[in-house]
Amino acid sequence: MSGGSEVDRLIELMSKLPGFGPVSARRAVLQLIRKKALLMAPLAKAMAEVEATVRECRICSNITTHQFCDICRNPMRDQSLLCVVESVADLWAMERGASFKGRYFVLGGVLSALDGITPESLSIPRLVEQVTEGEVTEVILALNATMDGQTTAHYIADLLAESGAKLTTLAQGVPMGGELNYLDDGTITAALTARKPF
Amino acid sequence: MSGGSEVDRLIELMSKLPGFGPVSARRAVLQLIRKKALLMAPLAKAMAEVEATVRECRICSNITTHQFCDICRNPMRDQSLLCVVESVADLWAMERGASFKGRYFVLGGVLSALDGITPESLSIPRLVEQVTEGEVTEVILALNATMDGQTTAHYIADLLAESGAKLTTLAQGVPMGGELNYLDDGTITAALTARKPF
Repeated sequence: MSGGSEVDRLIELMSKLPGFGPVSARRAVLQLIRKKALLMAPLAKAMAEVEATVRECRICSNITTHQFCDICRNPMRDQSLLCVVESVADLWAMERGASFKGRYFVLGGVLSALDGITPESLSIPRLVEQVTEGEVTEVILALNATMDGQTTAHYIADLLAESGAKLTTLAQGVPMGGELNYLDDGTITAALTARKPF
Repeated sequence: MSGGSEVDRLIELMSKLPGFGPVSARRAVLQLIRKKALLMAPLAKAMAEVEATVRECRICSNITTHQFCDICRNPMRDQSLLCVVESVADLWAMERGASFKGRYFVLGGVLSALDGITPESLSIPRLVEQVTEGEVTEVILALNATMDGQTTAHYIADLLAESGAKLTTLAQGVPMGGELNYLDDGTITAALTARKPF
């Protein structure tokens, strides 16, 4: 390219972002240069700030720029409800629902013998400790409805069986606005099995 | 969201990039945090660097991190050939073709009475000066084949009519790999009018 090596380097790095390729990275960099003061300067600053301060919450492994995340620090959140999720993205998705008032535990992945992901690398011992020693009365296993997610959920359920906490999981069924015609057989079977009075 | 206000701010800024919305910005920020050392730190640094050093080339208005851009500083580029383009993106597109060995002049837009874009705001007087006072023997008007682009090309052609430089424009016709069936009538007419011996 011809914008000088610094601009080329920026394009190359931008093209590594998910959803970006060389073409969209070039477009984004031109836009950044056009909006230098309004967008590029604040973005570079915000990125450097987050890069310097972001870490895992010591309690729930959510990302935070403090020692503990906003949710764990919030005294209004129900300490007795703990929702176990696979990733920070899942936690954010739950928070967008805005109906859950308890706390979270982010595993950071799912068990996988092939990839060498052990219970220890998912901080599962820390989760068990929190549930058995804390005031948690219900653990919601909100892991993804995939093979690995469900295997991990069963593994955690076994470990927490003796803890005294109630174990629950998200309901399965037809999604809001879902059309039966486009749903897979497994979902329809699950929704039928869990049918409820109209 | 719940990643702390710094993370929220970064997501908000990222979502302003072209091709990004709130969902893809969240995904990109999570990816950045996952690849903190490999991607986020170098990206923040590259962005700050470009932000601090990027400017317009004094000769051709291409973006550069020096006083003059790589093309204008390159003694191997033909000083007698000048290609007038609308934007830096167009210049980059021409450079990807890698067949043009002359220099460029970036207008930074097209004339538009409605938007208040005058010849002066496009540095057209500087272009005329370069052509009449320099060693330019051919000016290629590579403006986009839009109404505004062609109006601007005609305006520049009028100004340069007395300069002695040859004025040319890009050929119009069927694009490489183009199927006649999918081409608009204007392109087919242009290609037919400019037909050449097989």
